[in-house]
Amino acid sequence: MPSDETPDAKIEKLGKSIVMEIKKGENPSFTTSVRTRSNIFYDKKKGYLKLGDAQEERNFLNVAQSKRFMQTIAISAKCHKFVREKLHTTIRGLFYQLKFSLGEDIDENVFSEQSESNPLIEDLEVSLGLKREDLNLNANRKGVLAGNMKILDTFGNEKIEIDCTKQGRSGWAIPSDVDNDIEFVNVKAKYVIVVEKDALWQRLNEDLFWKKENCILITPQGQAARGTRRLIKKLSDQGLPVYVFTDSDAWGWYIYWTIKTGSINLAYIGEDVATPNARFLGVTMSDLDSYEFLNKLTINASEVDIKRAQEMLSYEWINKYKEWKDELERMIKTKKKLEQDALQGPRLTFVGDYIKEKIAKKAYLP
Amino acid sequence: MPSDETPDAKIEKLGKSIVMEIKKGENPSFTTSVRTRSNIFYDKKKGYLKLGDAQEERNFLNVAQSKRFMQTIAISAKCHKFVREKLHTTIRGLFYQLKFSLGEDIDENVFSEQSESNPLIEDLEVSLGLKREDLNLNANRKGVLAGNMKILDTFGNEKIEIDCTKQGRSGWAIPSDVDNDIEFVNVKAKYVIVVEKDALWQRLNEDLFWKKENCILITPQGQAARGTRRLIKKLSDQGLPVYVFTDSDAWGWYIYWTIKTGSINLAYIGEDVATPNARFLGVTMSDLDSYEFLNKLTINASEVDIKRAQEMLSYEWINKYKEWKDELERMIKTKKKLEQDALQGPRLTFVGDYIKEKIAKKAYLP
Repeated sequence: MPSDETPDAKIEKLGKSIVMEIKKGENPSFTTSVRTRSNIFYDKKKGYLKLGDAQEERNFLNVAQSKRFMQTIAISAKCHKFVREKLHTTIRGLFYQLKFSLGEDIDENVFSEQSESNPLIEDLEVSLGLKREDLNLNANRKGVLAGNMKILDTFGNEKIEIDCTKQGRSGWAIPSDVDNDIEFVNVKAKYVIVVEKDALWQRLNEDLFWKKENCILITPQGQAARGTRRLIKKLSDQGLPVYVFTDSDAWGWYIYWTIKTGSINLAYIGEDVATPNARFLGVTMSDLDSYEFLNKLTINASEVDIKRAQEMLSYEWINKYKEWKDELERMIKTKKKLEQDALQGPRLTFVGDYIKEKIAKKAYLP
Repeated sequence: MPSDETPDAKIEKLGKSIVMEIKKGENPSFTTSVRTRSNIFYDKKKGYLKLGDAQEERNFLNVAQSKRFMQTIAISAKCHKFVREKLHTTIRGLFYQLKFSLGEDIDENVFSEQSESNPLIEDLEVSLGLKREDLNLNANRKGVLAGNMKILDTFGNEKIEIDCTKQGRSGWAIPSDVDNDIEFVNVKAKYVIVVEKDALWQRLNEDLFWKKENCILITPQGQAARGTRRLIKKLSDQGLPVYVFTDSDAWGWYIYWTIKTGSINLAYIGEDVATPNARFLGVTMSDLDSYEFLNKLTINASEVDIKRAQEMLSYEWINKYKEWKDELERMIKTKKKLEQDALQGPRLTFVGDYIKEKIAKKAYLP
């Protein structure tokens, strides 16, 4: 990466261009992409949600924008400092730094609510072509990994090697930032399996499923955090097939589609976090035909499940697949759903056998 | 531990005593402690919430209890199997095993809702004098640790050594069960600091606070899970002082008091999970007197915060301390609260300095 493309240099460039405009007597401004629903598209060719071409200018000399403009510049100054100090914080920490330094200089507490700072950080991410993690702002982290790979984590001036086959019952906790000062080496696995629930991850980890199958075993522990989505994408980019294993219900499907196509909220970094090659392994409503015993282990679908299934039928990136239409319609019709935990019914180790069989038979959904 | 005290032996003993009663033509029964509010007490001498002496008998030949009795026996049979197989699952996995094996043999789905199985497992835990973790039932896990100690995790027929100074940005993820097949060795630290928020834990971890201060740095990531509470208790039993560092609000205080005195829900294992020696480091309302800058970083207390503070004033184990009465009354009066994140206001590294100073000055609350 050329040095003028580092976060440090990019923020400095923004600052210099604003100073230049002020010196020239011009109206200081910067450009960002429109992030409202009207500018979010599903890219059919690439297979993920992303922003369209609509741009907006933020101007200082504009009554409606002046306050926001000043706030954004204050945020970029803080992030510039964090990057140079090589220290990380969160949006909440940033909020308190701004409150601390601006609270007395100006007439009002411009950052009295954190909700004010969040969209401004997104402005900055988009405008600079960086992720907040590059600005040393940690997002919430969640997710655990085990399998035949190593992590080189440059941390506290040391390069720490973490062997993901030697993490025992715990697994390696996936951090917020998996791009800067961290490397994934010796990834010697055949595929990645993403398991919705930590409980099922623990079940499979205890069976050393990742060792026997030579795969990377990940749980996002529910909806995947930014760091986990990014990591899955990076492993996919290395050529590993990615299989997602969730409940057969609205929440499980949502987790899958978020990993695969990205989400509306993160469309502005869609390319970085979406894994269009991901496949849905199960559990599926059609498993009820292949695995007889599951029929007595279904539970009732909730109103939310059914409403959400109906919504999903309207998404072009879902309803183009007959298999998915069948799945969704079957739940709506039967008002039943199936949890991944149910696979433990006959015996605890059946979970792994199910995964192996589905992969061997290529019985997954697009 | 003598062999007749293993979970395996204890469950078997229960089973045998029931078979014996049946053979004698007696009414099969077992005894458990009453777990309703009326039998939960604060033990003044020991400093935690525990069950009183009231006992209940569960009988098979009792119209009101017959179904529950049968369910409890079915659960103990399943747990016995899990323990012998050396395989773990969760209550949800157990529920599906029961649904699988009882669903056809009997006329109705006795375990159609998981909420039915939970109190029965508690019955069994209390009756056998074991924790669910000893019955190979994993509870939710949450929490992360860094510091000068090692873990010996017997996992997959291997003894895996995990060095908690070599976990980089991630830390070691605290498991559900920290008693069986796991040891904590070479704990070479002066104290334990428990940090409410993962974000602040990451801040301190990045500063290598645990290394510089020679402490064990733990975050429960919010309310502490069973495994994390148990681990804190075990470290306290080794003679390490435990300091808890949370927000100064209802949620933060709740986290502290749950670690210190246990909770009503877990009173039945109070002795195992409560750490009466824990001290409350901050942030406190009285920090507003010692750290001038914090006054501009307070935020508004919510209705819930104030209502909860009023409730806490009525608890004998809290209102016996003048310092705590002052804290609670100050929030109620000013309707302001303070977050631990606010310590990042002047500079990101101030968080660690604050902790060091509070400990040095012994400026913590009981």
